Amino acid sequence: MTRPVLVTFEASDAGSWKIERLDTVVGDPLPRAPRLQVFEGRSPDRRPGSGWRLSGFTSNERYVERPERDALVRVQQPLGRADATCAALIPIRKTEAWWELTQDERRSILERRSHHIAIGLEYLPAVARRLHHARDLGQDFDFLTWFEYAPAASDSFESLVARLRSTEEWSYVEREVDIRLTRNPE
Amino acid sequence: MTRPVLVTFEASDAGSWKIERLDTVVGDPLPRAPRLQVFEGRSPDRRPGSGWRLSGFTSNERYVERPERDALVRVQQPLGRADATCAALIPIRKTEAWWELTQDERRSILERRSHHIAIGLEYLPAVARRLHHARDLGQDFDFLTWFEYAPAASDSFESLVARLRSTEEWSYVEREVDIRLTRNPE
Repeated sequence: MTRPVLVTFEASDAGSWKIERLDTVVGDPLPRAPRLQVFEGRSPDRRPGSGWRLSGFTSNERYVERPERDALVRVQQPLGRADATCAALIPIRKTEAWWELTQDERRSILERRSHHIAIGLEYLPAVARRLHHARDLGQDFDFLTWFEYAPAASDSFESLVARLRSTEEWSYVEREVDIRLTRNPE
Repeated sequence: MTRPVLVTFEASDAGSWKIERLDTVVGDPLPRAPRLQVFEGRSPDRRPGSGWRLSGFTSNERYVERPERDALVRVQQPLGRADATCAALIPIRKTEAWWELTQDERRSILERRSHHIAIGLEYLPAVARRLHHARDLGQDFDFLTWFEYAPAASDSFESLVARLRSTEEWSYVEREVDIRLTRNPE
């Protein structure tokens, strides 16, 4: 368990990730931009050509229980794999109704009825994932999830996203933008 | 459920709360200071005579279940009551071992074995309380809890703090400072 890390995703003219698609799934859109830069730790001052910024922090898990943690740790892969030249950044905001639920009610919807953790596990180790919390920073999104995968896993990733969007949990999502990116192989 | 609020506690020469005691319970101390000012939202630039600052955000509850929420909502009181001229600020940091536990393991220690929520309930409505999360901001403390109560509830508050410190949960606390404050009646 490492300490929380602040991560900033910045739309720009010159980031290391090329934005291939930027689709509004529900709610207000985000402006299009050619590229994205990811900063860990304190983000630098704004540069010429930079656009929107989204920030969130990594943190301890809020729902995962012991058997799930053990299963995740066995198969999950780190970010930055040389062949993972595809990425997705999916910022979401959940409704006030979600945030008015208690911990046990949120867990019940997220896992017992929507199988969020179990569905995610099926796509490991191909898809690497990191969750960033944004709501507590006063941002307009609650969560920023970043995924990395090889081009061969693209169809599989589409299936993962479609299955999560069909769950009861997703009925609490009131804003979602789906950003797909690529970078040059190392 | 309101949106999270960033709160900054600043030691100063001129804050509205007088620091009566500042005791190190475990771990590194905090420097003594005469007064404390509390800022909600973005904190202003540093002023002459200001000392240490601790910041944290209010957030959704992480452990409370539905019957507990209902019981809390029935009796808890807001901050700022005219007769609540005593306050306590208790910053704590928990061990890495705590943060390596999963959600179900933390809940089990916090409530099933340590009765943290149930003990707190016994002291409502006399003691008003607000929890601020600091770990995710990269601060040296994980939690900053602020309490307000009338002078007549002082003995009762000492009992609350003593009971919590004797729990299994508190064996995971590796840094704790206990700051007691008063302000003039309105």
